[in-house]
Amino acid sequence: MLVLITYDVRTQSAAGQKRLRNIAKQCKNYGQRVQNSVFECLVDPVQFAELRNKLENIMDKEKDSIRYYYLGKNWKNRVEHVGAKEGYDPEGFLML
Amino acid sequence: MLVLITYDVRTQSAAGQKRLRNIAKQCKNYGQRVQNSVFECLVDPVQFAELRNKLENIMDKEKDSIRYYYLGKNWKNRVEHVGAKEGYDPEGFLML
Repeated sequence: MLVLITYDVRTQSAAGQKRLRNIAKQCKNYGQRVQNSVFECLVDPVQFAELRNKLENIMDKEKDSIRYYYLGKNWKNRVEHVGAKEGYDPEGFLML
Repeated sequence: MLVLITYDVRTQSAAGQKRLRNIAKQCKNYGQRVQNSVFECLVDPVQFAELRNKLENIMDKEKDSIRYYYLGKNWKNRVEHVGAKEGYDPEGFLML
């Protein structure tokens, strides 16, 4: 299934900047960065549970926000990109 | 239908900052801001075509990126929020 992950991290402090880096790093391990704070992760339920657990341990729930969008198996019909940085195919191939 | 709109705008220049403000302003007219560069818009196909047309006229397609995610009618099952700024209900009520 494709899970879209978007986040806002409050980065005024050094601790916030560290959380931001760590959240991005974890997301990179499970998916493709499609915009600055937007990742598309093609994961099975076990992988998603692992990722989610990591992210929610890193984030500060008082300050940061993470949203998950479950795009399911037919995600290709649900995603459209316009402009710079043509989207990545979460299955691993660049869409040219 | 719910359309999720995410964007990255290159803001190094004053023109880029203006594009960013204008894109956010148009999105606000059609939906709810749920994160800094993430809007959820509950729109019919005509409204979505209008919005899309406006955004794509504002953006610089060489520099900026916009992604549309079509979450359909059963979007409530597809969205989950964790942390600060509890999500808005795109139908207009705060989810408390």
